[in-house]
Amino acid sequence: MNAGAPIGVFDSGVGGLTVLRALLARLPREHTIYLGDTARVPYGTRSGEVVVRYALMSARHLAARGIKLLVVACNTVSAHGLHALADALPIPVIGVIEPGARMAAERSRGGCIAVLGTPATIASGAYQAALRRLAPLATVIARACPLFVPLAEEGWTDGEVPGLVAERYLGDLRRMGVDTAVLGCTHYPLLSRSIAQVLGPHVSIVDSAETMAEAVAALLAAKGLLRDGDDAAQHRTLCTDVPDRFRAVAERFLGRPVTEVELVDLLP
Amino acid sequence: MNAGAPIGVFDSGVGGLTVLRALLARLPREHTIYLGDTARVPYGTRSGEVVVRYALMSARHLAARGIKLLVVACNTVSAHGLHALADALPIPVIGVIEPGARMAAERSRGGCIAVLGTPATIASGAYQAALRRLAPLATVIARACPLFVPLAEEGWTDGEVPGLVAERYLGDLRRMGVDTAVLGCTHYPLLSRSIAQVLGPHVSIVDSAETMAEAVAALLAAKGLLRDGDDAAQHRTLCTDVPDRFRAVAERFLGRPVTEVELVDLLP
Repeated sequence: MNAGAPIGVFDSGVGGLTVLRALLARLPREHTIYLGDTARVPYGTRSGEVVVRYALMSARHLAARGIKLLVVACNTVSAHGLHALADALPIPVIGVIEPGARMAAERSRGGCIAVLGTPATIASGAYQAALRRLAPLATVIARACPLFVPLAEEGWTDGEVPGLVAERYLGDLRRMGVDTAVLGCTHYPLLSRSIAQVLGPHVSIVDSAETMAEAVAALLAAKGLLRDGDDAAQHRTLCTDVPDRFRAVAERFLGRPVTEVELVDLLP
Repeated sequence: MNAGAPIGVFDSGVGGLTVLRALLARLPREHTIYLGDTARVPYGTRSGEVVVRYALMSARHLAARGIKLLVVACNTVSAHGLHALADALPIPVIGVIEPGARMAAERSRGGCIAVLGTPATIASGAYQAALRRLAPLATVIARACPLFVPLAEEGWTDGEVPGLVAERYLGDLRRMGVDTAVLGCTHYPLLSRSIAQVLGPHVSIVDSAETMAEAVAALLAAKGLLRDGDDAAQHRTLCTDVPDRFRAVAERFLGRPVTEVELVDLLP
């Protein structure tokens, strides 16, 4: 394995750019290739079988480009397809569920942990299983919040509408002693202010992007795969479809301009 | 062509069931096969090229099942891919744009016509072009309303949230002399009450499902293809992915129980 090779980051769409953002901040010298499967987004409302089939196509494409590590930024894929991807690829594969669950287990002060995610992620039970292992005494409440993804993509992240939607999904959690909430979807950090307002000031919000970046740094260090070149790191953004409004949405998630987007054709 | 053959109805997902519902009411003796491409829904935020490629796969599958006519219930496909489908298939193909635009042109009392649709439908300019031809003196305002689709799928069709969302998308139309609004997406009829409340009581709302059913009846009559059997009509529902919550969503759109859903594999 070549330490100078890029890190591959895969997501169903633009949401994983919040993970890439944290990765660039933590590991600024690493080359990266990001692939968003924008021709098939969203994954979160599909069956597990379809999610795995889509994810394998994208992961194989990234592996063929010589990445040294695959970061699965998509919670839905991490929940349903991590084993299938690890079996299919010759490189390490790391998902978001384990780092997110680990941080929630550390932060929780013995109360209840809430997991917020897409219908597919919640239905998979992956966070719930990880938390049973990492925080066996905690009560876990899982809650699907399907409208958070389209709200984040539309850019309606603050104000009346996201506030009302968050209240409807999460208002009852205030009475249930929740002390920690895991944002189990890459889109949700954009709505974290609205979510925090509903849950109240005493609830710790866990964004798996930062935990994931820590986990990637630790894994690369352990395998001797950290890049030590002095030349500027290179970042490529690939997508399977580039509709007109893609760039604006992508910049909102990455927090900086997305200058060049390469279209890759993974459709039949 | 066999008059006893079923009518094929194609949509990107469950939204076209509102068109099927109108078709069953208008033509109760016709057999139907409905195909929802739920493995790739939504189409409305994708590029035109990808929309056409997806639509061709589904349309060819329906044609191979011996349908006598293809109804394209999806506005996004009707806007981008109607010519491609008509060229590829040996049967008549009918879309929703022309019937919807025709009814809007008839209803408008010389004022302004608003077209509401997905980003892809609005960007295609298909409704705008049809209305320029059918109502050359009318002013046309086209407005993309991306959150209406996820709201309808979530079942949040009345109350505070859809009201606020509709106000944010459409509130300014009240000052623009709109007298007719076309619901240019199969999901939007579920939100028609919220939309009407924002636009006010003097605006006529055009739902292309009913106009489409009329157009289908006229076309079948003209071609001598109306079925005249006395046996009960048969209805089949096909989907390319069947996630857990599919049936509940489908019943909301069709307005009656969806007993059996057949999974068809159109993925690579």
